[in-house]
Amino acid sequence: MAQKYAVGIDIGGTTTKFGTVDNNGHILEQDRIPSNEHEVVEDFIDDLHSKLMPMIERAGGVKNFVGIGMGAPNGNLYTGTIEYAPNLKWKGIIPIASLMQKKFGLDTKLTNDANAAAMGEMMYGACKNMKHFITITLGTGVGSGIVIDGKIVVGHDGFAGELGHTIIRPGGRMHKSTGMRGSLEAYASATGVRETAIEMLTMHPEEPSLLRNYTINELTSETVYECAMQGDNIANDIFEFTGQILGESLANFIMFSSPAAIVLFGGLTKAGNLLLNPTRKHMEENLLPIFKNKVELIFSQLKESDAAILGASALVWEME
Amino acid sequence: MAQKYAVGIDIGGTTTKFGTVDNNGHILEQDRIPSNEHEVVEDFIDDLHSKLMPMIERAGGVKNFVGIGMGAPNGNLYTGTIEYAPNLKWKGIIPIASLMQKKFGLDTKLTNDANAAAMGEMMYGACKNMKHFITITLGTGVGSGIVIDGKIVVGHDGFAGELGHTIIRPGGRMHKSTGMRGSLEAYASATGVRETAIEMLTMHPEEPSLLRNYTINELTSETVYECAMQGDNIANDIFEFTGQILGESLANFIMFSSPAAIVLFGGLTKAGNLLLNPTRKHMEENLLPIFKNKVELIFSQLKESDAAILGASALVWEME
Repeated sequence: MAQKYAVGIDIGGTTTKFGTVDNNGHILEQDRIPSNEHEVVEDFIDDLHSKLMPMIERAGGVKNFVGIGMGAPNGNLYTGTIEYAPNLKWKGIIPIASLMQKKFGLDTKLTNDANAAAMGEMMYGACKNMKHFITITLGTGVGSGIVIDGKIVVGHDGFAGELGHTIIRPGGRMHKSTGMRGSLEAYASATGVRETAIEMLTMHPEEPSLLRNYTINELTSETVYECAMQGDNIANDIFEFTGQILGESLANFIMFSSPAAIVLFGGLTKAGNLLLNPTRKHMEENLLPIFKNKVELIFSQLKESDAAILGASALVWEME
Repeated sequence: MAQKYAVGIDIGGTTTKFGTVDNNGHILEQDRIPSNEHEVVEDFIDDLHSKLMPMIERAGGVKNFVGIGMGAPNGNLYTGTIEYAPNLKWKGIIPIASLMQKKFGLDTKLTNDANAAAMGEMMYGACKNMKHFITITLGTGVGSGIVIDGKIVVGHDGFAGELGHTIIRPGGRMHKSTGMRGSLEAYASATGVRETAIEMLTMHPEEPSLLRNYTINELTSETVYECAMQGDNIANDIFEFTGQILGESLANFIMFSSPAAIVLFGGLTKAGNLLLNPTRKHMEENLLPIFKNKVELIFSQLKESDAAILGASALVWEME
């Protein structure tokens, strides 16, 4: 096989990471540019090109590459377009895959960032040889990638797999950017943990807590974690509650697609068993007997700093 | 093509329906036997055989048949076994597909009854030429069949698609047979509508309602429908509430697999727009903008008396 390498590009709300990757999942080189400093997408692509082409040349040139894989918010696998991404500067429908293809002369495949993460798990991570699994990214928000029969589920329009926006507490907490009430993301994200902390501290004003030593700006999922590790009751309750909501949601997802594993990824997973134990407990409690004690609940094995680039590059190996 | 016919068999909790079907979805002949009057499955198969073989002979014999398709509770597509079906007499794991295959000399495929219904919609019903849809059967319980990329979703173990047991009201109404709280089936089934009626009549003892003229045994989804059609407020509220719960659940399912259509089937759909309007309203309200006004919400076009046999037979055409 002449083509030994792929390009992986992850367009995040703030930063775009990119790199050259071999087919064993090793990143040869990587770099980053800001996502939102270019008024038009063509300038963004020019900037990417000037940084990426030297990397491609150092790996022997375009002829050694099978293609470019990209992850981006609202990235559509069918059309190769980014459609109305709320966090990006370029509005409307952006045909980024075809623009990249022209600029680089390489086949380009696009999907959303959460689906790219799932591809990375299947190609290089915890789900090698698995055909049915779900990845849940617990970061600032909650992303998800669903794999059934070895393929990413994108649905009839390319946008399937928005599990962070499923409603688990009807009429519950308002999600500030979607306006929806009670979605998983309103609770089981870094933002959600912070909101739970503020709620619990306000609702139990008499109960002492190490968390009361922090200003409201310092209250983050990290400070909650640190206090929980020191035995703070409210901090522990916050993770218990977060795990309950997440576990109930995972049970619903399991009864939908019956995956062999659910892989958790992202900043919140640093809480380890503080999060994993209540999540597993409430997941199992809400499953029909036929699904109980069958589904592996695990943390991603991919290095967070590499995962986005690896996941995007994994889209391209599938093209072969 | 020599093989023009298929056998379709639907094993329900009470009755087993079966028939011979051509590849246009016409049932040549059909009959039924009780599901639970045979202590061992071999006797049940003997009984089926004695009724079915004359039908097969009248269609030119086994050589004209492509195979046997079966729908059964907890039917596993991968293994051809019925596994721990709570409503059937035969306990444990029943290798019914291989037993049928030996007895009839015909390839036999098995799945659960709700998946068979989805196959029927794709082969003969509202979802011809659709590759992404979900069927929801609103009967005594709530069944579901999920189709992605033209294939039934069965998951890693064969049991995916239990959407009736997903939790939509955490901590809510107890489901009598599963013991779980707040599942879709506890509300959006004939049983659920009856429970909602009893709850609403008890909670508002002063409010007049035609439903108060019925004994508690006469309170069924049918009587609620009749009273609603006569303008009864409580009866209308019951369907509004049922549609709200169903609509919220459908929104969650759409954000999972992004289907082109959701097909509703079963006894409750006789309520027509009384159920469909609130369901659609609450479904749309709970979708991310990217999914709004995209998903068809429709009733099945299949005759209820034929659908189970047609759906089961549709499994077999797929074998070709």
